[in-house]
Amino acid sequence: MIFIDACYRRKTLRPPIWFMRQAGRYLPEFREIRAKHGFIDVCNTPEVCLEVTMQPIRRFDMDAAIIFSDILMPLVPMGFELTYEKGEGPVIHNPIRTMDDVARLRMPEFPQDMTQLGRALQLVRGELDSEKALIGFAGAPFTLACYAIAGQVGKSMDDIRHFMFAKPDVFEALIEKFTDMIIPYFEHQVKNGADALQLFDSWGGVLSAFDYQRLMLPLISRIMRETRHLNVPRIFFVKGGAHLRWFLGTVGAEVIGLDWTMPIAHSRRLLGDQIAVQGNLDPAVLYAEPGYIRRRTRAMLEANGDRPGHIANLGHGIHKDTPVSGVEVFVESVLNYRY
Amino acid sequence: MIFIDACYRRKTLRPPIWFMRQAGRYLPEFREIRAKHGFIDVCNTPEVCLEVTMQPIRRFDMDAAIIFSDILMPLVPMGFELTYEKGEGPVIHNPIRTMDDVARLRMPEFPQDMTQLGRALQLVRGELDSEKALIGFAGAPFTLACYAIAGQVGKSMDDIRHFMFAKPDVFEALIEKFTDMIIPYFEHQVKNGADALQLFDSWGGVLSAFDYQRLMLPLISRIMRETRHLNVPRIFFVKGGAHLRWFLGTVGAEVIGLDWTMPIAHSRRLLGDQIAVQGNLDPAVLYAEPGYIRRRTRAMLEANGDRPGHIANLGHGIHKDTPVSGVEVFVESVLNYRY
Repeated sequence: MIFIDACYRRKTLRPPIWFMRQAGRYLPEFREIRAKHGFIDVCNTPEVCLEVTMQPIRRFDMDAAIIFSDILMPLVPMGFELTYEKGEGPVIHNPIRTMDDVARLRMPEFPQDMTQLGRALQLVRGELDSEKALIGFAGAPFTLACYAIAGQVGKSMDDIRHFMFAKPDVFEALIEKFTDMIIPYFEHQVKNGADALQLFDSWGGVLSAFDYQRLMLPLISRIMRETRHLNVPRIFFVKGGAHLRWFLGTVGAEVIGLDWTMPIAHSRRLLGDQIAVQGNLDPAVLYAEPGYIRRRTRAMLEANGDRPGHIANLGHGIHKDTPVSGVEVFVESVLNYRY
Repeated sequence: MIFIDACYRRKTLRPPIWFMRQAGRYLPEFREIRAKHGFIDVCNTPEVCLEVTMQPIRRFDMDAAIIFSDILMPLVPMGFELTYEKGEGPVIHNPIRTMDDVARLRMPEFPQDMTQLGRALQLVRGELDSEKALIGFAGAPFTLACYAIAGQVGKSMDDIRHFMFAKPDVFEALIEKFTDMIIPYFEHQVKNGADALQLFDSWGGVLSAFDYQRLMLPLISRIMRETRHLNVPRIFFVKGGAHLRWFLGTVGAEVIGLDWTMPIAHSRRLLGDQIAVQGNLDPAVLYAEPGYIRRRTRAMLEANGDRPGHIANLGHGIHKDTPVSGVEVFVESVLNYRY
């Protein structure tokens, strides 16, 4: 598989491509499904999950599928009351306040607590071309803690850091617990067909390097160490973590995801020779006219040069109202490229 | 003035200190004033503006006052309909959509379009201890454009970048116009008593280094070049711009503001010997217990070592519900420090 080869920095004819949130609202065929099924419903109905996961592959023929799910799904068996509100995204109705709240959290058991996800992975792996990879994923401990503490995330990340500094014991107990959950959750996904794993730290960039190193780095390193035996490449992506790059190469992940603020050439130098990279076109570029999208996509590829170990992707999830025509230009520019 | 000395990297006994949004809602005496006066009312009534500007100085005795105002105030004489909604912050009711909208913008004239600000600066400079500096400020072109385009900012910065890539001509005309306004606006502030100027690019960090260099750097450099004759130090602060540091030392500002994701020692190396720095404690640290605030404040000062040219500050504006006791520990830790 070209995707797996690139993760391990083996030579390929061109960079492989997939992109974050490729199964999503920018696709009319996805919106059609969502008109009939709620978000959690899509995740928990393996046949529907198969359908939406495959939609972008059928349309664009990229090199990897990512199972349709959400980083918060494993929080449901832990005891969090989770809903997805129209236009507001996920809401947790019983956020963490005290050490007792953390103590009450249940440790999910696999496969029984996530059987639908397991079944969906099997279905996708069965239908997907054998040359294409299936990616499983999880949220990183800090990002899960953001949702668990704030209930709803996005407007301001200040409250999370207030909590972190005001109640350090509760915060540290919580992120430990999420770490304990993520490791068997990743194992569950590989057992059911995932060929690669991505750990998303969508909010990790709001921490100083000092605090990230102190609190998060030991946990990320443990996740990588304890999933190494699964023998699949692990991708670690810290959105907004440009200031953390100098140590991200040490966590044990085979691939580091780059957002659009992390120039590829400079990032590869910071990360070191042993690390592949994934990214990083600003998803907003897909709103430009076709010629411009093509030029910026090629510039991204040329920034890597011919070094093996570059997976083309956007620098963050695709935006929900992105023109499909822009996406086509982006994907084709990569598929037609040759080193 | 110890503050001005540090801006020009002259030796001082300790780092000077002030902090962003030091006149603000975390102070009970400020909330008392705001109970009686709307936000724009405070800005436009010189005696009230004097009072709130001086409140933090009376309480904490820091080394600089910053005139109480808002980066969007000069947009009112340009023709933007601006209100401050409770709990939502500023809203622009006639956002920019087309080239005609940009063409219709009026270029403000100074002093006549901002007489109250001028008078407030005079009053503060008259009352402030002669050893303390008065800081004037403006929003950078990109940050002003964010508000002018989105109408309301904060939840997602995606729409701004969509606009930037989809309508590059309109976007570039708009940021040019803001640049033309900022230069005489800075001049107006110095004429009325400002001893230093800060240019705030609160949202600039959402741009890739490529786009920031391409679109913003020429404008920032022009602002610095055309305000040099004012003979006051200029501070340039790009929140979230850790990935831009390697060229921020070249814009012509005497001081670069650092947010809490930009470690001081590393940033000084990137910026070069000729640049002073300001920052950068994570404002969320002020929610911790006193001993911890003291340790983190000292760690920030020690990270600079004894190099002249460090102004102690928070890494971003103080949060509105910060405990005043935490602020006291922070300010005292700096005032009692000796190189």
